[in-house]
This record gives sequence, structure tokens and C-alpha cells, in this order.
Amino acid sequence: MISRVAILGTGLLGGSAGLALRQAGFKGAIVGWNRSADQGQVALRTGAIDSLAADAIEAAGASQVTLVAVPIYATLDLMEKLAPVLGPEQLVTDVGSTKQLICETAARLYNTAERAAFLPGHPMAGKERGGAALADGNLFRGAVWLFTDDLAAQRSARAAELVNDWREWVTKMGAKTLDLDPVRHDELVAWVSHLPQFAATALSALLEEEVGGAPELKDVGGRALREMTRLGASPFSMWRDIAHTNTEAVERALLALEQRLAYLRENLRTPELREEFERANKFRREQV
Amino acid sequence: MISRVAILGTGLLGGSAGLALRQAGFKGAIVGWNRSADQGQVALRTGAIDSLAADAIEAAGASQVTLVAVPIYATLDLMEKLAPVLGPEQLVTDVGSTKQLICETAARLYNTAERAAFLPGHPMAGKERGGAALADGNLFRGAVWLFTDDLAAQRSARAAELVNDWREWVTKMGAKTLDLDPVRHDELVAWVSHLPQFAATALSALLEEEVGGAPELKDVGGRALREMTRLGASPFSMWRDIAHTNTEAVERALLALEQRLAYLRENLRTPELREEFERANKFRREQV
Repeated sequence: MISRVAILGTGLLGGSAGLALRQAGFKGAIVGWNRSADQGQVALRTGAIDSLAADAIEAAGASQVTLVAVPIYATLDLMEKLAPVLGPEQLVTDVGSTKQLICETAARLYNTAERAAFLPGHPMAGKERGGAALADGNLFRGAVWLFTDDLAAQRSARAAELVNDWREWVTKMGAKTLDLDPVRHDELVAWVSHLPQFAATALSALLEEEVGGAPELKDVGGRALREMTRLGASPFSMWRDIAHTNTEAVERALLALEQRLAYLRENLRTPELREEFERANKFRREQV
Repeated sequence: MISRVAILGTGLLGGSAGLALRQAGFKGAIVGWNRSADQGQVALRTGAIDSLAADAIEAAGASQVTLVAVPIYATLDLMEKLAPVLGPEQLVTDVGSTKQLICETAARLYNTAERAAFLPGHPMAGKERGGAALADGNLFRGAVWLFTDDLAAQRSARAAELVNDWREWVTKMGAKTLDLDPVRHDELVAWVSHLPQFAATALSALLEEEVGGAPELKDVGGRALREMTRLGASPFSMWRDIAHTNTEAVERALLALEQRLAYLRENLRTPELREEFERANKFRREQV
């Protein structure tokens, strides 16, 4: 039913979605747009898109489904620009890592009788570094692709069809779909995704200052050090919008970790240390 | 020159050392002792040791070199018991993760004209879990085996010979030897080994309490979560002695991380967040 998809933002996620759609047997047209045309050309060369559009709004206007795959503030900006241009026979969906602000914007600008449908999405897949050249048609295989809010599907039979079709393509790309309330989504990712990232950044920055120049470091540091600082390589550009759009939940999680570290520090020589290790052991045994 | 080695503690490190010595071509006898005889039998079956002794002191008394591979407090206890029994033609070495207390004990009880030589060692190798069954002759391949203090070698020509021989066997096991002052050693491992471990324990224990029962957790948690909590599986029994014998350095490191997380939390929406990411990026690019 979907014969033309626009991918706005042909970086790691957008490019991977284009490649995965093709691998899954999608026969329609895939038009891409990218803020930097150079990166768009890379996506064209890898086969992630069939053609590169000069204008994002025009590309979306000519497609049934538009996948917005840019950082969160750029997503909100595109949502504002697309809303008055698209019609009720069209679907917009996204890949943003925080969902409350995007869902609020969707409720304000989409999913009315005259407007396009909007389905907020978040594939739980990625790499430390982004970019069109790293796009991978298997990136979503075995991953979970979250959707928050099903307002789009409830709006009209046509919107429900488009939403259903897109969900089917996501499944064919190898992902498992899961529905989550947007507030719960942002709270949960603050604990299990954003907190681990900011903890790795803080640890890496601290070690840079404390032992950054130590000549013995490369010899003494082992697997624990490499693993606990790997996410220290994550680029600010990817995390700035997350810090800005999920601030309160991240603040709560960071404060809780500070308090937990202080508790552990005060109990290095008491029996409470054993209990803390046992709690940590339980998490690993049962949850991850 | 070394014809008989005693391994006191035939768990992961002791057992791996026995297997690695054999792989490296050591032709002498390897006698093992273990607090739990069952685990000692496992080491015997894997070929890590040739024979299992019922008495640690007797086994050491009949060997030129004794490798003590037990937790730190048990190491200190064995050091006390071995010192009056062994003679100046014998060498004791260890694998303890903190070195100041062990070096102080060695200075008090070893390396005199009538006493055995003591060479404090710390191989930077291990697994999350211990035990004789996980012993691996390649565990030290490519790893660094630290020595702190060369007092043993300076004591007599015979001690120097034994120390030199043992260092050569360590090299033949595939490890790279490195000398470090014991105070500097404990300070450095507090930052690059103990801090990552305690941070992972605190994060895992916190997540167990905050999201431990969440049904969506297995779907939403990704690689970042798995990686940053892997060390949460580490057993308390391995870390208790480290917390007790390197308390002040670990307290300093934990406090510094608490302050760093607070700084990041207070700057989620300021330009300082970018600088913190850039510092972390630099650490990963240049140091690890």
C-alpha cells in the first residue's frame, strides 16, 4: 500500500531504515533528504535511498509515509513545518530518543481531520558514532522499536491503515514493536539508557583529569576500565537534545546515583557493602 | 633453576598460573594447596597442579618458590605463618590486588638475612567469577603482571636469582612485567580498577531498586545498560578485602565521581555539558 517513503535525515538511523526496508522487500520509492548534502550523497551511494531531494518539505509532500530521523530539536522543527503542508492521507513518524515533547507537539499539530497522522517511534538501536557511512540494513534485527501513543491509528480508517502498514514494515526489518506511554518511556530510558551514558561521560572526564597523563595507564587499565568508559566516546551532538528534553528525569536519576555512591563510600568497611553487592548481583542475574 | 613451585590457593589465578607454567615449558614439580579441598581436586584434574598438599606450610617449605594466590587478608595470614618457617634460599610471591599492606608486612617479616625473600606481584588479569574450573593457561597472555618493590632482589645474590627466574617465567606465561611503587600502585588501581567496579555495583544496585521489577526492562535496556552493569555480577567475596585494604584511595575516587556527577547534573542545560563530553571523548581517544 505504501508506494513512496521519504526519509528526512539519512544518517545512521535513517540510512539503516532505508537499507532495511529494501532488504525486507519494499518495492516502492525511497526519497531522501539530508541537511548536509554530502552525507545525503553517501546514503545514495550505499543504496539507502533512490534519490536525494533538495527540499525536505517537498519530499515529504510527495510521500505517503515520512520517517523523520534527525536529532530531537530538528525533529520538532520539521514537525512544525510539515504539519500545515501535509494532508490526512499521510503519515509522519520519527526515531527520537525522548518522547514527551514530541508527543505534545504531535497532539497540538497532527492527528486532526485535516492534518496528517503522526506516530511517535523510538528504535532501540544505534552505534557510538553516527553517519550515513555506518548505516546497516541489519541494525534493527533483534532490536525493539518502541511506539508511544496510538492516537494516529485512532483518527481515521486511512490513518489506521498507514500506521498498521508502517508497523508491519518495522517488523519485517527485524525489529520487535512495543507500545509504551510517553511519560513512562522517558522515565524508563532516563534510568536504563541516559543514566548509563552520563555516568560513563562523568567517569571518563574525571579520569581524564586525574590520571589522563599517567604513563602507566595503558598498562594498568584493564577490561573494566575500557568497558566502563566506552560510552565516553559518545558525541555531545547526539546527547545535547536528550539532556535538554528529558532534564528532570535525568536529574533525578543522576542525583540517585550520587547518593548511592556516597552510601557505598560510607560503607566500604561495614556489612552494608555485602548487601549492596548482593543487590547488584540480583540485578544482573534477573534483569539484564 | 626452580625445580619445585607451591601454589597456595588453586582458584582462577593460582590454577591459571599452574597451567600457564606448564604451557611455557616448566618441567619442575607444582604442588598445590587449597582451603577447600574440593576445589583443589578440580585443579588437580585440570592439570594445574601435580599433587595436592594437605598442609600449606609444608608445601611451601619443600618448594623454592611459593605463589600465594588467595584474597588479601588470607595472603597476610599466610605471610605471617610462612615467614618463621621458610629460609633465605626461598622466595614467596603473591597476586593481591592492593599492595601497600602486603608490602608493609613483607618489610616487617621477609627480606632479612635469615628470612625468605618476598616479591609482591599483581597480574592484571581475571574474570567476573573465580574458581578452579575457570582456570585458563592463556589468562596472562598479553596482560601486565605488576611488581611493587624490588627489595627481595636486593637482599642477596640467591634471592636476586630466584626473583629473576620467577620474572622470566611470568614473561614466558605471556605477561609483560612492570614495576610500580606500592603507594602509586594502590592509588592508580583505585582510579582505573576499583572505581569502575564500585560505580558498576552502585549503578546495578540502584537500578535493581528503581526498575528491577519493570516488565518492559528486558525490551528497553540495550547494550549501554548491559555493559555498564556487567561488573555488577562481581562477587562481594572478591571485593571485600580490596574495600578494606585500599579504603582511603577508594573513598577519594568515589567522592570525586559523586562531585563529577553532581556537576554534570547541574549543567545539563549549560555549555559546560559540551566541555564535559569533550573531556570524556579525549580520554577515550588518547588513553584507553
